[in-house]
Amino acid sequence: MIPLDHPRYHSLKIRERLARYAKKGIVTPEGLAAHGRGEAFDYLIGEKTTQSALVAEQTAAALLMAAYKPVISVNGNTAALAAHEIAALQRSSGAVVEVNLFHRTKKRIRLIEHLLQDAGVDVFSGEAERLLPLSHDRAWCRRNGLFSSDVVLVPLEDGDRCEALVNMGKKVIVIDLNPLSRTARAATIPIVDELTRAVPNITRACTTLSQKERDRLMESLDNNYLLTAAIREMTARLSHALD
Amino acid sequence: MIPLDHPRYHSLKIRERLARYAKKGIVTPEGLAAHGRGEAFDYLIGEKTTQSALVAEQTAAALLMAAYKPVISVNGNTAALAAHEIAALQRSSGAVVEVNLFHRTKKRIRLIEHLLQDAGVDVFSGEAERLLPLSHDRAWCRRNGLFSSDVVLVPLEDGDRCEALVNMGKKVIVIDLNPLSRTARAATIPIVDELTRAVPNITRACTTLSQKERDRLMESLDNNYLLTAAIREMTARLSHALD
Repeated sequence: MIPLDHPRYHSLKIRERLARYAKKGIVTPEGLAAHGRGEAFDYLIGEKTTQSALVAEQTAAALLMAAYKPVISVNGNTAALAAHEIAALQRSSGAVVEVNLFHRTKKRIRLIEHLLQDAGVDVFSGEAERLLPLSHDRAWCRRNGLFSSDVVLVPLEDGDRCEALVNMGKKVIVIDLNPLSRTARAATIPIVDELTRAVPNITRACTTLSQKERDRLMESLDNNYLLTAAIREMTARLSHALD
Repeated sequence: MIPLDHPRYHSLKIRERLARYAKKGIVTPEGLAAHGRGEAFDYLIGEKTTQSALVAEQTAAALLMAAYKPVISVNGNTAALAAHEIAALQRSSGAVVEVNLFHRTKKRIRLIEHLLQDAGVDVFSGEAERLLPLSHDRAWCRRNGLFSSDVVLVPLEDGDRCEALVNMGKKVIVIDLNPLSRTARAATIPIVDELTRAVPNITRACTTLSQKERDRLMESLDNNYLLTAAIREMTARLSHALD
């Protein structure tokens, strides 16, 4: 349907994929709208990994490798877009992967867990409890998973839950294309990049960076710098259109 | 569900409304993602009608009033979000309203026409033909409607169709929150504003502006100025976050 030479082929293919998973009940209507918001910000950074985003991704790898219990918390959009990429990251980082949903039903949890398993993810799916200090179904997680982690990667997170996890003393890595969002501002490491570009970059960094390089990245970690750099990219791109 | 004092109450209510209409088949998954993109750009103009957008809306009113055959082309998102607002605009401008869909099925056309009729729109629903020089179902329209119009208002249009309509010699008014889009650049008047704010502003201008004011607006119409002003708003807002 979408011609290969379309200037925004990759972005359109991803959207088509999400629409397909929406029909299966894996992606919610709200998830589709959230994806669209991300597309707009991605457009403003030029639909590529910026230099500062790559630094964020490498620092995320360093943090995951240094953790005693790293956890990747997966939602519907993440599973639909990047199940194989999550499997590869799990292999290189040793992280626990668990499914946590904003719009939580037993059926959706099961669908998403199966999708991940089919892609080769070892899913941690023990009994969930309401353990996070949040109203709404976002409070659910697993005692021996997310709850007891020290480092969490939460792609496409909502602001409330990101703040709650940080307040519990966890180091929180988020992938969020909106550098102005509460999520991005609250996170230990905000990665302002598109999910299917970001995850493979983290995976690669897990295996290629030396211990010394990882230590250096963690020492120079600066949330404010990462967000500022992303905002500057967007401003530059908008201004360029004025020329 | 959404607390009335939530800072983004209006935006969240609109999104909830679209999700509901998606379940009915009126809004497509692609439509939900497109809405999300709009939300991101709306966020960057501060979720309010800017001064330049108001000028665009008033000029649109002038153009509709001066037309011999003004047509409003409605899609699924527009019907779901602004059926009553379209009815009011039809009353004050005398425009023909017809339904044209990117993801076209007879069932969707019928659902959307009924939704508009229930809101008081007089829908022009004669026999459609493939009359526009476009591949895809976007080519369909009605000979005595869109095809023979001189001025068209197409809220939430796609770039190809906007360009085709302009190339046919029509004056095309679009409502598009992305000032960098092909649609916005190709349009005679790009309105960079949110649909449910934009349409009532056009309606109001149809009844309040004098002939002299309308002539002055049409004489000073400048697509490039309108887009530049919108981009400046967004750049300013992003830069503000750096302070």
